[in-house]
Amino acid sequence: MTIKQDYKAIAQGKREQRDSLIPSEWRIESPSKAVQNVLDLPAKCGLLSSKELTITSDHDAVDLLENIRTKKYSAEEVTRAFCKRAAIAQQLTNCLTEIFFDEAIERAKILDREQAANPNLPLRPLHGLPISIKDSFRVPGVDSTTGLICWANEPDTLYSSLPRLLLDLGAVLYCKTNVPQTMMTADSDNNVFGRTLNPNNLTLTAGGSSGGEGALIALRGSLLGVGTDIAGSIRIPSICNGIYGFRPSASIVPYGGQRSPAPAGIPGISPVAGPMVTSLRSCTYFMKTIMEAQPWRYDPACLHRPWTGQLAAQKLRIGVVSRDGLFTPWPPVRRNIAESARKLGDAGVEIVNLSLPDVGEAVDTIMRMFSLDGSKFIQNLLASGGEPEVRSVRNINLAGIPSANLEDYFKLNAARSRIQQVYHNLWLDNRLDAIVLPPAPTTATPLDQWGPISYTALWNLLDYPAVIIPTGKVQPVDEADSVEHAIHGERDRRNYQLYTGPTEFANAPLAVQVVGMKQEDEELTQVAAVIDKILNST
Amino acid sequence: MTIKQDYKAIAQGKREQRDSLIPSEWRIESPSKAVQNVLDLPAKCGLLSSKELTITSDHDAVDLLENIRTKKYSAEEVTRAFCKRAAIAQQLTNCLTEIFFDEAIERAKILDREQAANPNLPLRPLHGLPISIKDSFRVPGVDSTTGLICWANEPDTLYSSLPRLLLDLGAVLYCKTNVPQTMMTADSDNNVFGRTLNPNNLTLTAGGSSGGEGALIALRGSLLGVGTDIAGSIRIPSICNGIYGFRPSASIVPYGGQRSPAPAGIPGISPVAGPMVTSLRSCTYFMKTIMEAQPWRYDPACLHRPWTGQLAAQKLRIGVVSRDGLFTPWPPVRRNIAESARKLGDAGVEIVNLSLPDVGEAVDTIMRMFSLDGSKFIQNLLASGGEPEVRSVRNINLAGIPSANLEDYFKLNAARSRIQQVYHNLWLDNRLDAIVLPPAPTTATPLDQWGPISYTALWNLLDYPAVIIPTGKVQPVDEADSVEHAIHGERDRRNYQLYTGPTEFANAPLAVQVVGMKQEDEELTQVAAVIDKILNST
Repeated sequence: MTIKQDYKAIAQGKREQRDSLIPSEWRIESPSKAVQNVLDLPAKCGLLSSKELTITSDHDAVDLLENIRTKKYSAEEVTRAFCKRAAIAQQLTNCLTEIFFDEAIERAKILDREQAANPNLPLRPLHGLPISIKDSFRVPGVDSTTGLICWANEPDTLYSSLPRLLLDLGAVLYCKTNVPQTMMTADSDNNVFGRTLNPNNLTLTAGGSSGGEGALIALRGSLLGVGTDIAGSIRIPSICNGIYGFRPSASIVPYGGQRSPAPAGIPGISPVAGPMVTSLRSCTYFMKTIMEAQPWRYDPACLHRPWTGQLAAQKLRIGVVSRDGLFTPWPPVRRNIAESARKLGDAGVEIVNLSLPDVGEAVDTIMRMFSLDGSKFIQNLLASGGEPEVRSVRNINLAGIPSANLEDYFKLNAARSRIQQVYHNLWLDNRLDAIVLPPAPTTATPLDQWGPISYTALWNLLDYPAVIIPTGKVQPVDEADSVEHAIHGERDRRNYQLYTGPTEFANAPLAVQVVGMKQEDEELTQVAAVIDKILNST
Repeated sequence: MTIKQDYKAIAQGKREQRDSLIPSEWRIESPSKAVQNVLDLPAKCGLLSSKELTITSDHDAVDLLENIRTKKYSAEEVTRAFCKRAAIAQQLTNCLTEIFFDEAIERAKILDREQAANPNLPLRPLHGLPISIKDSFRVPGVDSTTGLICWANEPDTLYSSLPRLLLDLGAVLYCKTNVPQTMMTADSDNNVFGRTLNPNNLTLTAGGSSGGEGALIALRGSLLGVGTDIAGSIRIPSICNGIYGFRPSASIVPYGGQRSPAPAGIPGISPVAGPMVTSLRSCTYFMKTIMEAQPWRYDPACLHRPWTGQLAAQKLRIGVVSRDGLFTPWPPVRRNIAESARKLGDAGVEIVNLSLPDVGEAVDTIMRMFSLDGSKFIQNLLASGGEPEVRSVRNINLAGIPSANLEDYFKLNAARSRIQQVYHNLWLDNRLDAIVLPPAPTTATPLDQWGPISYTALWNLLDYPAVIIPTGKVQPVDEADSVEHAIHGERDRRNYQLYTGPTEFANAPLAVQVVGMKQEDEELTQVAAVIDKILNST
């Protein structure tokens, strides 16, 4: 590939333009090089007023909406507070791509006037809530580069379906967030905007592909962001940053009209949009609000799956999976899933220990489905931008990915159907309400080292909804142990050895993943709420 | 293709075996060659007792279930009556493939005993209802040849998902029904079982691919049959035979585990299973019963789309389409749609005259999607059976169908999405509750002459549910007129000239097609009920 010299100039222009949209009075000093954890800096930097701190620190999205509804806060002051805190988050972690704070504040003012003018009308369900969105969602007037040079300075003219719906529901959009080059890795690093850092521990990855959202929400520069997920792209940054992230079933939340580095009409595993938030009930509120809004009117690909309001079972029966048979969980991950299972059992949840069948074949099918075109389309995009691959993309070796023909694709479909039937039987035979498992064999890894996607992508292949529940952080007890624990071959050993102990991985968040039955997203929100309460109340 | 001589012997064996399952006391005399319309022969042939005549003639499926529930009829006498009448229908039209009357009567006896033993337990929703099924549904112990020699004498060992569910809901299965060779034409004719005739007019096609169901139900040898539809295969035989037929949205009714002459994993337009019945409310009852039964437990590909019980709008706004721009409706079809629109308007329905956009591109996309593999799979099946193509299959020239590559398939998907968006906008912009249009430009055609599928297959491409409502028959006023009416080119002229007037097409049924929004099958049943009442009450 020939590298044109002007890709750096394009990137420089994009970054300067973005940075110019942060008012100079919102600038903060860079933290000292020695600081690893910057989570407390938004509060400590002195930029946020006490009310702004309260607005951004003391609520989840549901609570904040209620406070706007009751006029404790105006939409404008809420929006201004989150714009300011997002600006701080940007300076600490480089999590933003496009900034439209001014338009957001203008819209918030309009919403406040609407509320004042119609005091007796019920507010729309997202009235005044600032919502951040992944860079791939289109908003008129700003780019959707998805971190690709070739798409710089091509402002969109139309909305993607979800931002359009969010606005119609009363939300305020104020920024877009960073992603990996190609959106195919778990490191949100690209030539346009550079790398997003993990505010829990700057030496570890922020994850991806919705990594900008992860870092922004961990710093409470947003209480509700929207990411997308085709193999773990909502869940991996949720793990890495210690937030809640919900991967809905396919076609429940509008996904249409995205900027996507994949050929039009490519079939296979459906990417989905979903919430990244600071509480479980915010996931529920987002899903309920979207599903009640006839989202298919916004995206003809959406299912007509109504929110029913029916209550799920109270006495839960949960399948617990400790490892997926491909990658051995690191010591803190092993401790976390064991402690979580114990807490659930102690709380009266019926536990079924499960092994996951056919994970190897599932992962092969997933990887082949992701790259039906041999990744030619994305390689052409990189070439047309004259840009080199970043390190995490070089690691996956795009040029080495084989393409498929139509007959291969039939076989992949048939394999997927077979595996779906196997898991369907597993679910029904065990009368499960949910499966709880590690969301990854690792915590946030060192930069550009995230490898395994089996723990997350399996559920994309099956199209089962899954939610990440944060459950703590790496502890001093989580010492590194012998690589002999990694019994699944060379890739497993390599991955296992990345963990070097609780000092280097200080403050790395831990989490569990709770998986529901396909399209039973509503039921999953209820079951996950019970599990969250058990795991996070002690 | 080399034709092996033994294919006739295999067919002979299958037919003899089937015929041997009709008791000799249920044999009737062949009607005179001069008889065109055999609809009244089941009543006139003298084989059915007065009670059997009442059971089979005077009810729809909903009514019949109620009469079993209240013990006016036993399941056994109902089953015996329909087995007998189906045997008569078979002798008149050759509509059956596999017969299992004895097992059905045994099961009915068990159901009666269950009812007697538990007089206070509510009955299952299909308790005692005889249901006929298309040959492609698998039932252990009998073949699913789908009219292919190569699959003769291979009795199934497992149920397809839908028959399994129907049995769990209390139904009685008693026979399977005939289909076209390859299931790709609208003439239910094949080398194994021969041709199914249209009981309304034996010189016209019974339609296909669910043609055996169509003829059987028209003769009331069944009140509820299940067909499948990928381009019109439920609706075309419903038109031809003058019955109600409902094509659900994809993945609402279990389809899994069918015998299918298509390669495993082939994507594209999803075939669906749906009801063919004698009343609109029987469609509704079938859909409600299936959707309330968690059908996804039986077929993991099913949507989790609950029946909501919510009422649709009472004041309807209906788009009326008179012609699709590819094929000119025959005179009786033109008269029928005009009269139907007038009746609807007179009854206070708001009418919007619509033109269908992009029908040509839609049909091209459909045809390419049906034959991604260049129909190689089906040609190999024919070859392995050593059988020649029947005339209707020769007409579609399998060997001339081009195959596609993966890139072609991406483009077809993209074209489909674009067309779906166009129709989505058409629907929303016009605030439609339904679209009413002719289900075909023709009535039942002479044998092996059915051509156009654009009026039906468009809705498969869009995945909009559609129901056929019979509205009368060809009348003496429906004289043939000049071919100059056919303005859409040579294929249109050829198709138009097939209509030679009300004498040759005496008793050919007419119908309208009512189309709903994707996955709003429940709403469509409500809207269609209003339309049916208006069209069929005067």
